[in-house]
Amino acid sequence: MDAAEFRRRGKEMVDYIADYMETIERRQVYPDVQPGYLRPLIPEEAPEAPETYEDVVKDIERVIMPGVTHWHSPYFYAYFPTANSYPAMLADMLSGAIGCIGFSWAASPACTELETVMLDWLGKMLKLPQEFIAGTSGKGGGGLIRGTASEATLVALLAARSRKVKQIRSEEPDLSEAQVISRLVAYASDQAHSSVERAGLIGGMRMRKIPTDEKFAVRGEALRRAIEEDKAAGLIPFYFCATLGTTPSCAFDRITELGPVCNAEKLWMHIDAAYAGSSFICPEFRPLLDGVEFADSFNFNPHKWLLVNFDCSTMWVKKRSDIIGHWQIPLGRRFRSLKMWFVFRLYGVRGLQAYIRQHVKLAKEFEGLVRKDGRFEISADVVLGLVCFRLKGSNDVNETLLKRINAARRIHLVPCQLAGRFVLRFAVCARTTESRHVQQAWQHIAELASEVLQ
Amino acid sequence: MDAAEFRRRGKEMVDYIADYMETIERRQVYPDVQPGYLRPLIPEEAPEAPETYEDVVKDIERVIMPGVTHWHSPYFYAYFPTANSYPAMLADMLSGAIGCIGFSWAASPACTELETVMLDWLGKMLKLPQEFIAGTSGKGGGGLIRGTASEATLVALLAARSRKVKQIRSEEPDLSEAQVISRLVAYASDQAHSSVERAGLIGGMRMRKIPTDEKFAVRGEALRRAIEEDKAAGLIPFYFCATLGTTPSCAFDRITELGPVCNAEKLWMHIDAAYAGSSFICPEFRPLLDGVEFADSFNFNPHKWLLVNFDCSTMWVKKRSDIIGHWQIPLGRRFRSLKMWFVFRLYGVRGLQAYIRQHVKLAKEFEGLVRKDGRFEISADVVLGLVCFRLKGSNDVNETLLKRINAARRIHLVPCQLAGRFVLRFAVCARTTESRHVQQAWQHIAELASEVLQ
Repeated sequence: MDAAEFRRRGKEMVDYIADYMETIERRQVYPDVQPGYLRPLIPEEAPEAPETYEDVVKDIERVIMPGVTHWHSPYFYAYFPTANSYPAMLADMLSGAIGCIGFSWAASPACTELETVMLDWLGKMLKLPQEFIAGTSGKGGGGLIRGTASEATLVALLAARSRKVKQIRSEEPDLSEAQVISRLVAYASDQAHSSVERAGLIGGMRMRKIPTDEKFAVRGEALRRAIEEDKAAGLIPFYFCATLGTTPSCAFDRITELGPVCNAEKLWMHIDAAYAGSSFICPEFRPLLDGVEFADSFNFNPHKWLLVNFDCSTMWVKKRSDIIGHWQIPLGRRFRSLKMWFVFRLYGVRGLQAYIRQHVKLAKEFEGLVRKDGRFEISADVVLGLVCFRLKGSNDVNETLLKRINAARRIHLVPCQLAGRFVLRFAVCARTTESRHVQQAWQHIAELASEVLQ
Repeated sequence: MDAAEFRRRGKEMVDYIADYMETIERRQVYPDVQPGYLRPLIPEEAPEAPETYEDVVKDIERVIMPGVTHWHSPYFYAYFPTANSYPAMLADMLSGAIGCIGFSWAASPACTELETVMLDWLGKMLKLPQEFIAGTSGKGGGGLIRGTASEATLVALLAARSRKVKQIRSEEPDLSEAQVISRLVAYASDQAHSSVERAGLIGGMRMRKIPTDEKFAVRGEALRRAIEEDKAAGLIPFYFCATLGTTPSCAFDRITELGPVCNAEKLWMHIDAAYAGSSFICPEFRPLLDGVEFADSFNFNPHKWLLVNFDCSTMWVKKRSDIIGHWQIPLGRRFRSLKMWFVFRLYGVRGLQAYIRQHVKLAKEFEGLVRKDGRFEISADVVLGLVCFRLKGSNDVNETLLKRINAARRIHLVPCQLAGRFVLRFAVCARTTESRHVQQAWQHIAELASEVLQ
C-alpha cells in the first residue's frame, strides 16, 4: 500500500469509525458467539500473496464485529469505563505515523518533553502537592505515563523495596540484601485489585491484606495494628498500597489516617486511584484526594475516565531519585502524551469536568431509580459513576437476575462480592450515555426482576 | 468534537500523515533542539476553555516536529528499526475506535481469539515446532502479544522461578520458598540487552553474565562451566536467556549447543530474538532459529522489523500451564492483533519476505562499500540488516567520527562497544530506505572520515 492508497483507505476508515460510533447503540452490546467462534472463519495460515484491501475490510463485519463486546455502547455498564474520544483518536493516528520509540531523550526529544509537561498540566488540574510537579528544576518529583495501573503498582513496590533495603542495611550492615527482603511485608486493602497481590508475587514479597470497615475502606487503625503484629513477629513493613475507588464498590481508603501511619513507620505509601482519579479535577471531588501529601507515589488512569484512549496510566512520584532504575518495566514506549495534549486542549478543563459530572449525575439518577423500588437495595455509597445494588434477598436470586440481564444482551453488567453478598455493579461507561439510556436500562432490569421474583 | 467534525479532521489527519511520510526525507533526521526546548513553547497549564482544532494542529509543526527524531526517515540508521506501515496504521485506527480492553475472553471475544490465531499464523510462518502452536486443542503451547521484549523476558523469568521452586520443594520439602529463591541463579549473554539484567533485579534474583566467543555468541561449553561452578557453590541454576541477534552486533547465541545443556540441567531456556526474529520467515534465515525446539519460550518483536507498528512483541511458550498466573504484567490490553491481521494479509508472506530481504541486501551493499575503503574495518559478521564498522585505529578517532556524523545531522547513527572497541552501528531501519540513500550515507561518512583523519 502506497501513500496514495493510504489517503483513500484512511479516509474510508475515518468514515467507518464515525459510522460505528454514530450507530453503536443499534449493535448488540454483548456478543452471541461461543469460545472458538473465530478460528473457523479465517484461513489457518497467512496468505502467500497479498490480498486486496476490499477483502480485508469486508471481514471486519464478518469476522470481528460479531465477537466484539461494545465498550462504547451506551448500553455497556460493566467493569469501569475505558476512554474513547475523537481528539484522542486523532492524536493516536499522528503518534502511529511519527512512530518514534521514546526510550531516551535523544530517541525523540519531543516525546520525552511533552510527556513531562503534560504530567505537570494534569498534576496541576488535580491540585497535586508541589513536590509531585516536575517544573523546570529537573529535581525532586514529577510524573510519567505507564501502560497500566498494574505496572505503576509494581514499580512503586520495587522502588519501596530498594529504599527499605538500603535503609535497613545502613542501620544493620551485617544483614544481606536477601535477608532483608525475606523479612519484608507489604500491605493493601482486602478490596484492592488483583494486580496489587500479583505485584507482591512478582517481586517475591509478602503481601498482607488489611480488613476494611463497613464502607469497604481501610482505616488507619487497621493498618497500625497489622504493622505492630508484623514487627513483633520480626518482619519489616515497607509498603502500603492505598486504593481510592476500589474495583468492587468504588470505596476510598482513608488516606488522611493512613498517611501519617505510613510516614511514621517509614512505609512507602502508593495511591492507586485508577478509576476515581479522573474525578479529582472537579473541586467537589478533590477532597477525596486529601492526604495525597503523605504519599510517595500516586497513580490513576486517564484512559479510564478522562477521554484519553488506552493506554495512558499516569504516575507521579515525590522523589524521582527513589525510582531511578525502575521508572519503567517496558523500555520502548509510544508517543502517548500527544493524546493527552489533544484531549486537554480540545475539551478544556471545563469540558473534562462537565464530562465527569455528567457521568456522576447519571449514576445518581440510576441510584434514585433503585431506591424508589422497594424490592432493591443500594449496597455501597454512590460517590462517583458506579452504583452497587441488589435485590433484597438471597445471593441466588441476584445471580439469577444477572444471568437474565446478560442473557437478554440488551445491556451488559458484571457482579461483585461485597461482605459475602452477590451484588450487581452498574458503572456509567460510554461517552454517549444519556439519561434515556439509564432509564431504559433500569426499566429493563426492573422487568427482569419481576420475572425472576415471580 | 462530534462525529461530523471527526470525519473532517480525520481525513485532514490522513492527508497530513501521508504528506509526512512522502516528504520525510526532506526533514532533518535528528533534531537541533536542546533539553528543555519544549516547555517554553506551550502554556504552563491546560486551558480552562476548549481551544479550536486549528490551534492544536498548527502546533504540530511549531512544537512537536522540531523535537522529533524521525525514525522513519531513510537517513535514520540508529538503534534497530521500529516498524511502520500503512496497513498497520489503518488497523490501529480501527483498534482505537473499538477501544475494547481485552483482559478476558468475555471482555472482548474477538480480541482474544484473533490474537491466538494470529500467533499461530506467525508461528507457522517461522516454522516453530508444533508444541508452540495453539491450534484448536486449547492444550499445550501457544502465543500471545506483549508490549515489549522486556516484558517477555521478565514473564519467562518469573515462570521459570515458579517451576524451579516447585521442583526443588517437591524434592526437598523442608526448604522454604524464600530459601530456594535465595539460591537461584539465572544466566544470559554478556551481550544481552539491559532489560535481561533488569528482569533479574525486579525478581530479586542473581543474574550471571556468560562470556561470549570471538563472534560475540554464547557457546554451550561456557554455559556448562558456569552452571557447574554455581552448583558447586550451592546455587540452583534455573534460567538461561539466549539472544538471537544481540543489540550491539546482531550476534547469535549457539542455541543448538545451549539447548541440550539447559534441558539436561533443567533450566528454562528463553530465546529473545527481538530484532532478528522477523527474518526467520525467510527460508534462508530460518537456520538461525535451529535449536528453538529446546526452548521453553521464544519471543521477538514484529514491531521492529515486520511492518507491524509498535507495540507488538510476540511470545510463544510450549506449556501454557507453566506460565498461567504470569501471562501478563499489565492486565488491560488493546486490540493489537488487528494490525498483525491487516499487515499479514495486505503484504502476504511473500511481501514480508521481500521486505526483509531488501533490508539485508542494503546492509550487504553498505558492508561492501566499507570493505572497499582500506581505512575502515568491519567489526562483526553482517548477517541481517546491521553493519558494525569502524576506522582502523583508536577509539578516539572513531568517537570523533561519530560526533561529526551526528553533528552534521544528515544521517543518524549510534555506537556500540565490542571487545573494548568503539564501533559504529549502521542499521537499515526505514521502510523507504533505498540503495541511493545507503550510497549517500556512505559517501557522507567517507568524506567526514577524510576530515577526521586529516
